[in-house]
Order: sequence, then C-alpha cells, then structure tokens
Amino acid sequence: MKISELSRRTGVPVASIKYFLRQGLLPAGRATAATLAEYGEEHAQRLRLIKALTTLGGLSIAATREVLGAVDQAHSSESALGAVSYALPVPVAAQGAAGQEEEAGADATAGAEVAGLLTELDWQAPVTSPHVKGLTAALEELRRLDAQYAPGELAAYARLAESVARLDLERAAGLDDPVALAERAVIVFAICAPVFELLRRLAQEDQVRRRVAGAARGGDAAPR
Amino acid sequence: MKISELSRRTGVPVASIKYFLRQGLLPAGRATAATLAEYGEEHAQRLRLIKALTTLGGLSIAATREVLGAVDQAHSSESALGAVSYALPVPVAAQGAAGQEEEAGADATAGAEVAGLLTELDWQAPVTSPHVKGLTAALEELRRLDAQYAPGELAAYARLAESVARLDLERAAGLDDPVALAERAVIVFAICAPVFELLRRLAQEDQVRRRVAGAARGGDAAPR
Repeated sequence: MKISELSRRTGVPVASIKYFLRQGLLPAGRATAATLAEYGEEHAQRLRLIKALTTLGGLSIAATREVLGAVDQAHSSESALGAVSYALPVPVAAQGAAGQEEEAGADATAGAEVAGLLTELDWQAPVTSPHVKGLTAALEELRRLDAQYAPGELAAYARLAESVARLDLERAAGLDDPVALAERAVIVFAICAPVFELLRRLAQEDQVRRRVAGAARGGDAAPR
Repeated sequence: MKISELSRRTGVPVASIKYFLRQGLLPAGRATAATLAEYGEEHAQRLRLIKALTTLGGLSIAATREVLGAVDQAHSSESALGAVSYALPVPVAAQGAAGQEEEAGADATAGAEVAGLLTELDWQAPVTSPHVKGLTAALEELRRLDAQYAPGELAAYARLAESVARLDLERAAGLDDPVALAERAVIVFAICAPVFELLRRLAQEDQVRRRVAGAARGGDAAPR
C-alpha cells in the first residue's frame, strides 16, 4: 500500500510516518519509484505499536527506538523477555543527590529496605538492576516527605505486584517467534501498565464512594 | 526562616520557590520587611509535597495547583478523599476520535467491556467518572492494536487492583484533620503510584530471570 493508505489504515498522519521513518523507528518501504514506496501489513502493525508506545505507554521517541531495537534483536523467547524488561524506561529514574544535608543516611536506609524486601520475597534482581535503583530512589523521596511505608506495608504491595506480574508473564507467553513474543511483551509490560493504574484508580473511587455513602447513611454517594 | 533557609531545608532552589509562590502553589510567607518574608514548617512541608508531586508523581504545575486546591478545601474526611480522587489527573485521558474507519464500533465495545466489569465486580462509578472514561479510552487503544484482554483477564487484574486500592485506603485513613487527611491521600494516590509500578517491574524481572535460568538449566540467569 502507499503511504497515504498506510496513514488512513492506522490513523497516523503522513508527516508523522515520515518522521518515524527518518528516526529509524519504522523500516523503509519497498521502493517502487524514486519518490514512491510500497508498505505492507507489517508496517501498519509496527506503526500501531509506535503510536501506542508514545501515547498510552508515554514513551519518548528515544525510549521507543531502544525498545523496538530490543524487539528486533530478539533471538530466543527468554532473551526477548529479558531484553524488553531492561529496555523499557523505569518510572522513577535514580536522580543525582540534590545536595540536601538530611540526605546523608537516606540512601543507605532505602537501599537496605529494598534489599530486605528482595530477601523476604525471594526476588532475584541484582543491585545494578534499573528497577532496584528506581525503587530505591522512590523510597528515598518518600522518606524525605516523611511518608515512608510502615513495616509490612511495602511487602503487602509487593505480594500483589507479584500476582500482577504473574498475569503479565502469562499474557506475554505462548508465542514461538521471538520477535512476535517481544512485541507482545512490550504491549503487556509497557502499554498495559496504565490500564492497571486506571483499574486501581477506579477501585479507589468505588471504595471512597462506599465510605461517603456510609458516612451519609444512604445519602448522596458522589465524591463531591 | 528566610527563603534561603527554606531552600536549604527542602533542596528546592530559591528560584523555584519564587516560581511556586507566583503560581499560587505555595502560600506567601509572613512579610517582615518590604522585600523579606518569614516562612514556617508548613511551608517546608508543602514545598516537599509540591516537589514530590511534580517529580515522583509526574504532575504538571496546573495539575498540582488543582490537587493542592482540593487539599486546602477539604472540610470533612469523606469529601477530602473524594475531592483528591477526582482532582488527580487520569493516566490515560480520553482522546478525540482520530478519524480511523475501523473505529466505528470500538467505542461501544470498550464501553460495554467497562460496564460489564463494573457490574461483575460491583464497583460503583458513574459513566461520567474520569476513571471510567480513561479506562474505556485505553481499552479502545488496545483493541486497535489487536491486543485486547482475553475474557476474564481484565477482571483478574481488576481484583488485584481492588486489593491494592484497599491497602491505599487503609494508608490514607486514620487522620482526623481533613486537610492532613487530604494531603496523605495525595501522597498515597499520586506519589506512591510509581512505587507499585516499580514493584511490578521488579517482580517481572524476577520471573523473567527464573525462566531464563530454567531454560539454561542452572546457567547464567541474567536477562541479557
């Protein structure tokens, strides 16, 4: 199909498609003339994935390029999942020390909290893992806010996260082709993440409404 | 304390503090001279909250202003939780129709999926809820990618989200002062959201490592 048809099929403007081609996110089409190229179904699918990563997934163009690079280099099912897991941007990047004097011991405290959690749950991840670093940075930030988790609370969340991750892995499994598997993993790990966050927000709303209704004894249950 | 001391205590640069004052995010200090003001502990706490909302929470200045407005207007425990729940930005905003021809029925399908989920789980939320709209938009986007949830999968995630929300509500409860309660709710609902996402990513990493180790029969368990 021509680029105009590719645009119509995917809802991505032609100018954006040309941008993604220049940025190397989308492979070039088959040249049919000096200024014409023919695109296939695989281009449409890749474009939809790029669109979902940059909108729903909230990834930058640079992050999208890295993730798609990991997808295209997948050569076995296991390496595909691992590469995608590490290529995705971490929600909270470890920030440089901000020069606060109260921070001196925060790093060690948060680091010990994460190490204790990994031991308690028997999770395998090295201290160099971007997820370990990101979690440590987030816990430090909460400590600065004096909003740290009470003993046991973080582990309670972590057990639920483990169940969520198990559902994720089940959804990402069952494909033989490594590249198809990696593409599925990107969808499950990155694009579906806001869906869970929305479910959580919806469940919060439900529980708040029940409290309001309880307080009003059958009165108006609207949150405001 | 003077603005320089406030900056030192919170790690927020003086220029940023002045910006937050101009933007109305931080209440003015007590004027002690034409160009001098005195700040208290409540300013330091509010500044830490602003910093956490804009970094860890990923909120814009406009969204932060709206959330803090809801905090300051809280007049009862229940209204505080509801106001904060609705003031927080939704991870996936409902987007305008992108003019794709295959989209005609997507809206109705995703809407029915969300309505069915609410009924199945007995969650109370109106169709006008920003969380219902956001979830519908996200499911539409996944359908376009041909990556919709299999029957039962979304409900399985939703049940886990319900358990997470229950932990959230427990953490946000137990404070009598509505403003303090609202501030706590902001921390739990907005600032701690990435912590759960990091726990999920860490659990994914653990499970991927176990698969790799299983495939290699005791070999190198690193994801790449």
